Amino acid sequence: MKIDVLTLFPEMFEGVFGHSILKKAAEQKAAQYNVVNFRDYADNKHKTVDDYPYGGGAGMVLKPQPIFDAVEAVKSSSEAKPRVVLLCPQGERYNQKKAEELAAEEHLIFICGHYEGYDERIREHIVTDEISIGDFVLTGGELGAMVIIDSVVRLLPGVLGNQESHQKDSFSTGMLEHPHYTRPADFRGLKVPDVLVSGNHAHIEEWRVKQSLKRTYTRRPDLLEDLELSETHKKWLNEIKKEDK
Amino acid sequence: MKIDVLTLFPEMFEGVFGHSILKKAAEQKAAQYNVVNFRDYADNKHKTVDDYPYGGGAGMVLKPQPIFDAVEAVKSSSEAKPRVVLLCPQGERYNQKKAEELAAEEHLIFICGHYEGYDERIREHIVTDEISIGDFVLTGGELGAMVIIDSVVRLLPGVLGNQESHQKDSFSTGMLEHPHYTRPADFRGLKVPDVLVSGNHAHIEEWRVKQSLKRTYTRRPDLLEDLELSETHKKWLNEIKKEDK
Repeated sequence: MKIDVLTLFPEMFEGVFGHSILKKAAEQKAAQYNVVNFRDYADNKHKTVDDYPYGGGAGMVLKPQPIFDAVEAVKSSSEAKPRVVLLCPQGERYNQKKAEELAAEEHLIFICGHYEGYDERIREHIVTDEISIGDFVLTGGELGAMVIIDSVVRLLPGVLGNQESHQKDSFSTGMLEHPHYTRPADFRGLKVPDVLVSGNHAHIEEWRVKQSLKRTYTRRPDLLEDLELSETHKKWLNEIKKEDK
Repeated sequence: MKIDVLTLFPEMFEGVFGHSILKKAAEQKAAQYNVVNFRDYADNKHKTVDDYPYGGGAGMVLKPQPIFDAVEAVKSSSEAKPRVVLLCPQGERYNQKKAEELAAEEHLIFICGHYEGYDERIREHIVTDEISIGDFVLTGGELGAMVIIDSVVRLLPGVLGNQESHQKDSFSTGMLEHPHYTRPADFRGLKVPDVLVSGNHAHIEEWRVKQSLKRTYTRRPDLLEDLELSETHKKWLNEIKKEDK
């Protein structure tokens, strides 16, 4: 997968692309990152990338020309038709389903503005996907792009080793994870639940499912709506609901 | 504000803390970042930070000792009672209200795991806030911590300059922003709407509010539920709804 990022702060990406899974994916040639400062594409003498808004008002607006030209340049580097992602608060909310959708592409281009607005012609004529990672205000699109890239690249075939993919699998039950414990069994007087050191695997499994159900019910009841629970699990969930009252 | 980050990948933070608003906040002494590799606190010979889960199963679990000791060490560096934030999928969903809450604190400590689970005793006895930035799977808590830190630090007094705070204000109407345009009025045949170059400020304001209403109605109707609209704005919204049918 080819990944181009257009930003005014290319150095922000070095630490994130240079470590952990994203680094490993690049070494395996599963992903190839290219960070472009779109200021380099500004065709004016002062390399200006923003200007005052038409109609007045405070704040600056990113001009169409540098971004149009930068996107066209990185588009030409690949034969695949790219998805062009704009990070912005108005975008659709990012989730795992969208990560899976983007992971099926060959070429992604991310446009990161930095507290300025975007000229609307960028949205209308270049961008294929406007995405927001959540209802909070960030200084720029850079962190959103990093979040999306991390979540997408880890889905590419062969990128995750055994250990990481096991964690991933445990998320995909649709419920929140049960509590985990590791050694020591007694840490400063804080003890591991007896069942986990009992050696009785049926009891351990039952404890884990109940804990998952309980945590999901308490913290994210919305997730339970989409689940198809077995009769046993439904019974356990009803017991948990009764205890809660 | 004092900000400590506990991670196994300290270098990931350099690019983000070293640029833009986060860098400026540090220069102004509004925020002070300290990134700690909690492996340095492991009291075993091999500096191991994780171990197999009690009760069996795949994946590794972060041991309590290195994280307990690292948190205690950074706690002692400040007199303020810190908030200790754990980044995890089970946490409460992050939003702007939570950002404002955290921005009122003097000392934040972030614990970033990296695809391993956390020993439950860490959650129960050290952590004050479990936070998730969204329903997507990331490799570690590092990107979530960066997102929270960016959104919190920009709220600290004096950190934002005029230009950035204007953008922020425009978000806080509770609606999505209207489209922005800047020069040229004709870019490759793509034109700015006539009203914006008309010089009629009443018309421009009406166009902007209608565009905000329309975009919010189309993309994020949930936001409209919490808004107290004026009679005029309600009328416009009804017209937009009719056109949509």
